[in-house]
Amino acid sequence: MVKKIQRSRIISVFGGRKADPKQCEDAEAIGRAIAERGWILLCGGRSGIMEAVSRGCNEAGGLTVGILPGTDDSDANSFVSIPIATGIGLARNEILACACDAAVAIGGKYGTLSEIGHALQYGKSVIVLGSWDIPGTIAVHSAEEAVLTLDSIMKSKELS
Amino acid sequence: MVKKIQRSRIISVFGGRKADPKQCEDAEAIGRAIAERGWILLCGGRSGIMEAVSRGCNEAGGLTVGILPGTDDSDANSFVSIPIATGIGLARNEILACACDAAVAIGGKYGTLSEIGHALQYGKSVIVLGSWDIPGTIAVHSAEEAVLTLDSIMKSKELS
Amino acid sequence: MVKKIQRSRIISVFGGRKADPKQCEDAEAIGRAIAERGWILLCGGRSGIMEAVSRGCNEAGGLTVGILPGTDDSDANSFVSIPIATGIGLARNEILACACDAAVAIGGKYGTLSEIGHALQYGKSVIVLGSWDIPGTIAVHSAEEAVLTLDSIMKSKELS
Amino acid sequence: MVKKIQRSRIISVFGGRKADPKQCEDAEAIGRAIAERGWILLCGGRSGIMEAVSRGCNEAGGLTVGILPGTDDSDANSFVSIPIATGIGLARNEILACACDAAVAIGGKYGTLSEIGHALQYGKSVIVLGSWDIPGTIAVHSAEEAVLTLDSIMKSKELS
Repeated sequence: MVKKIQRSRIISVFGGRKADPKQCEDAEAIGRAIAERGWILLCGGRSGIMEAVSRGCNEAGGLTVGILPGTDDSDANSFVSIPIATGIGLARNEILACACDAAVAIGGKYGTLSEIGHALQYGKSVIVLGSWDIPGTIAVHSAEEAVLTLDSIMKSKELS
Repeated sequence: MVKKIQRSRIISVFGGRKADPKQCEDAEAIGRAIAERGWILLCGGRSGIMEAVSRGCNEAGGLTVGILPGTDDSDANSFVSIPIATGIGLARNEILACACDAAVAIGGKYGTLSEIGHALQYGKSVIVLGSWDIPGTIAVHSAEEAVLTLDSIMKSKELS
Repeated sequence: MVKKIQRSRIISVFGGRKADPKQCEDAEAIGRAIAERGWILLCGGRSGIMEAVSRGCNEAGGLTVGILPGTDDSDANSFVSIPIATGIGLARNEILACACDAAVAIGGKYGTLSEIGHALQYGKSVIVLGSWDIPGTIAVHSAEEAVLTLDSIMKSKELS
Repeated sequence: MVKKIQRSRIISVFGGRKADPKQCEDAEAIGRAIAERGWILLCGGRSGIMEAVSRGCNEAGGLTVGILPGTDDSDANSFVSIPIATGIGLARNEILACACDAAVAIGGKYGTLSEIGHALQYGKSVIVLGSWDIPGTIAVHSAEEAVLTLDSIMKSKELS
C-alpha cells in the first residue's frame, strides 16, 4: 500500500550575494539546524548567504531547493540539491516568500527587503538576523536564537 | 513615412488597498501631475491608493496602465485605461518596479514594501510619501514635494 | 465630474522574431486594423512579427503595449508606445494570453505555440494565420479574414 | 570535508487534471521509472496525470517536486514530497519547462500544450505519449518506450 506523504516543513532563508564571514557562519549554522530537524531549505540558490546556508544544510545531510532567477541550473551554488531554474528573474523572490512555512532573513539588501515584504504580505513568520528592521518581523541576535525561534514557530504550527 | 515613437516616461505609484482620505487626496494630486506632464501612470490597478492615483490621472486626461494580480480585467478600478490581467498574483509587484522610470510610494503596507525593495534592487529612484522609511528612498512630505522631486529626476534623465 | 472609463478592447498578436516579408505585411495590416477600431494592441514588443504589427498599429495612430521579457525597455521595437519591461522572461507569454480579449497568431514557432496554449487554456478566441494548426483555434487565410473574424468576435462580446 | 553535490537529473512530466485510467497507469509507470533511476520528478503537483506520476514516483521511493499555481501548499496531491506554492498561476507552466533536463507529456489539453511549447522553446527534449503531435517532440506509444527514450536522452547528456 502506498503511503500518503507527511511532507516536511519548508524554511526559506533570504539573504544577499554579498555577506561578511560572520553572517556566512550564522547562515551555515542555521542551514545545519534546518537539516537536523528534517526540514527542507528553500533559498535563492546562488552565492553569499544563499551558498552558506546551503553548505550548512548539505553538511548535515539536508535537502536544499534553490529557486534560481535565470534559466541555467549551473548558476546554482555547489550545495543546492535541487536547482529550480525559473527564468522569471527577480520575480522568483515572491516564490521564496510564498512557498515557505517560515522564513529567516540574514543580512541582505534590497532583494532581501522585497522577500521580507512578500513574506509578511503572505502572513508568514519572518525571523531577521542582522537584516532589515521591519515591523512585523521577529528580530534575533544570533544563529542560536534564530533556530530556537524557528523551533517554537514550527511547534505552534503543529499544535494548531 | 512612419515615425519612431518617442515613448512617454512611465511612473509607477505603489500603495495599498487601504488608505485614509488624506493619502487618497495626495495620490489623486500626484496622478493629475503625472497626466499633466504627459507621463504614463503604472500601478497595481486596484482599490485604495491605486484607485485614487488612477482617478487623478484620468481627471487630467492621462493614461493609466493597471498591472492586475488576477486573471480578470474587471478587477481593475474604474479609472484604469489599460488593464493588464497578469494572472501571476503578487509577483506582479516585481513588474511595477521593473517597468518604471521612477516610482512613488504612498502609505502602503507589506505589498508596497516588496515593491520598494524590488524597485531599489533595480536601481530606480523611489520617492516615499508617508510610506516605508527605507535607506535609498527619497522621503517627501507632501504631494507637491513628490511632484517637484519627480520633475527633477525626470529632468536629470533627459540630460544624461 | 469624473467619467468612468469605457475601456478599449485589447487584442494580443502572437508571432515570432523571425518572419518572412508576406507575414510581416499581414501583421502590419492587422496592426492597422486594430488601431482603426480603437482597440489596443498587446504584443511581445520585440522584432519580427511583433515589430510589424506594432508598426501597422502605430501608422494608424493606435496604441501598442509591449510586454517585454527582459528588464530593459530599450529592447522594445521602435513602434511600441508603452513598453512594459517585466523581467520575467518567457513567462511573459502567459500575460499576453491572459490579458487580451482575443488573440491572433501569425506564423511563429515554439514561443507562439506556448502563447496559443495559454490563450486556449484561458478560453480566449485565437485566430491563426499561417501559424500552428491547433484544435480550438480559428484558422484564417488572409489578414483581411483575420480582421473580419476579429470584428465578429468583438461584436459577439458586445451583445453578450 | 563537505562534498560538492552531484545533482540528480530532473524530469518534468506534463499532463492535465483530467486523465483516463490507461493514461494514469502509464503516468504511474513513468513516475516509478524516474524514481528507480534516482532522478527527481518535477510536475504541476495537482490531480489527474500529475497525481498519477507523483504516486508512481512515491511508490518507488522517489522525490517529487510539485510546482503549484496557487499560494496554498495543500493544493498538492498526496504524493508530492516538496510542494512549491508559487502563487504565479499558470505562468508556473513555464518553470516546469525551464527547470528540467527532459520532459514527458502524457495526454493533456491546452495547459500541457503551453508546457510543450515552452519546453521546445528552451531546446529541451520532449517525449509525447498520447499527447499533442507537435514537430520537434519525440512521439512514443507506451510507457516503456517513453522510459527507454528518457534513458537514451539522459545517457547522451552524460557523454556530452
